[in-house]
Amino acid sequence: MSRKAVILLSGGLDSATVLAIARQQGYDCYALSMQYGQRHMAELNAARRVAEAMRVSGHKVIRIGLESIGGSALTDDSIQVPEVMEEGIPVTYVPARNTVFLSLALGWAEVIGADDIFIGVNAVDYSGYPDCRPEFIRAFEKLASLATKAGVEGSHFKIDTPLINMSKAEIIRLGLGLGVDYSLTVSCYQADEAGKACGVCDSCRLRARGFEEAGISDPTLYAGTG
Amino acid sequence: MSRKAVILLSGGLDSATVLAIARQQGYDCYALSMQYGQRHMAELNAARRVAEAMRVSGHKVIRIGLESIGGSALTDDSIQVPEVMEEGIPVTYVPARNTVFLSLALGWAEVIGADDIFIGVNAVDYSGYPDCRPEFIRAFEKLASLATKAGVEGSHFKIDTPLINMSKAEIIRLGLGLGVDYSLTVSCYQADEAGKACGVCDSCRLRARGFEEAGISDPTLYAGTG
Repeated sequence: MSRKAVILLSGGLDSATVLAIARQQGYDCYALSMQYGQRHMAELNAARRVAEAMRVSGHKVIRIGLESIGGSALTDDSIQVPEVMEEGIPVTYVPARNTVFLSLALGWAEVIGADDIFIGVNAVDYSGYPDCRPEFIRAFEKLASLATKAGVEGSHFKIDTPLINMSKAEIIRLGLGLGVDYSLTVSCYQADEAGKACGVCDSCRLRARGFEEAGISDPTLYAGTG
Repeated sequence: MSRKAVILLSGGLDSATVLAIARQQGYDCYALSMQYGQRHMAELNAARRVAEAMRVSGHKVIRIGLESIGGSALTDDSIQVPEVMEEGIPVTYVPARNTVFLSLALGWAEVIGADDIFIGVNAVDYSGYPDCRPEFIRAFEKLASLATKAGVEGSHFKIDTPLINMSKAEIIRLGLGLGVDYSLTVSCYQADEAGKACGVCDSCRLRARGFEEAGISDPTLYAGTG
């Protein structure tokens, strides 16, 4: 029987690639998505499409009321998503988001008996986000075994971050080689209901530049087109 | 201006005492409660009463869908709450619960500019819960500074666990000295809608024994009584 893994699946380009990598490595894949007060449902719809296309063994969507905490352009309507790259840590940073997401992934991993959790963090493009750094990931891995019944009983949880040192172009090339259909994914911070991207936010710019650098035609649907 | 602290407030005896301690230490207190698919709302109602009685500066209730993960008698109706103490880690253990709760507290602490998070974990009575141990708390504290924008910018988060080495009787005596009204609190794992306790679950037994050992009349309302 193959080993189980929980894969954090946002519905974006990176997490879809991570799911393809976990599948390629032979894991029995359980995808976990969060409904955390994002501005739009396009991302979750994309997660459902990707999970289905990759035939995961299970897909859960957990509701978390991060919008009641606020503090981010992604969860607080009063903060604008910027249209130019910012210096330092961007306003799209959601306080403690990856800590919360990894904690929930850890809970599910413990319930289903998975030792591996995959997350699509990337320290190249998103060096501004503290919870995308290798030192954060290592600290969480250490915490995970102390935090759980499974850990006390001898399990060693591993947080797999296969994209952490890759450029967006490298991620795209790898994913295409593994059969990822990027037209199913949504990366935009403010996509419309139909999943069409704004083309101007940080996430759109990084994604578009990735396809350009990879020399691949960009399958993204942009608002105002098609 | 006094320093801010986030206090995890379940509505039980321990967290009410922790809130009183934080207030006594001069913190500007922000209480955080979770609606995580508990069997009953009595606990959250108690949290609201306690927060109001202690005049906190803010009280938030965050919804988290832990019941979709399951794996615990507290969040899964198909698992019975036991009426005898179990050996080892009890079925009332909720996978990764304190990791999830501390992560959300960390997010809110970052937003409001608090460096301290108070949590009523106790290693004496609940030695069976891995996420109540000092080594777990230390690992989370380390993670917290790596996980956040505030940490990167120099904040050092502290996880305060004033009850960690106290017996239930000591906690009760301390709380009474600080003016805690324990009749407002609900500790029972399966309290009824009115907040009346079952009197037989682990949590009820520990609480009742605590009042007995402290030589204090037990103010708990039990089902089938007045």
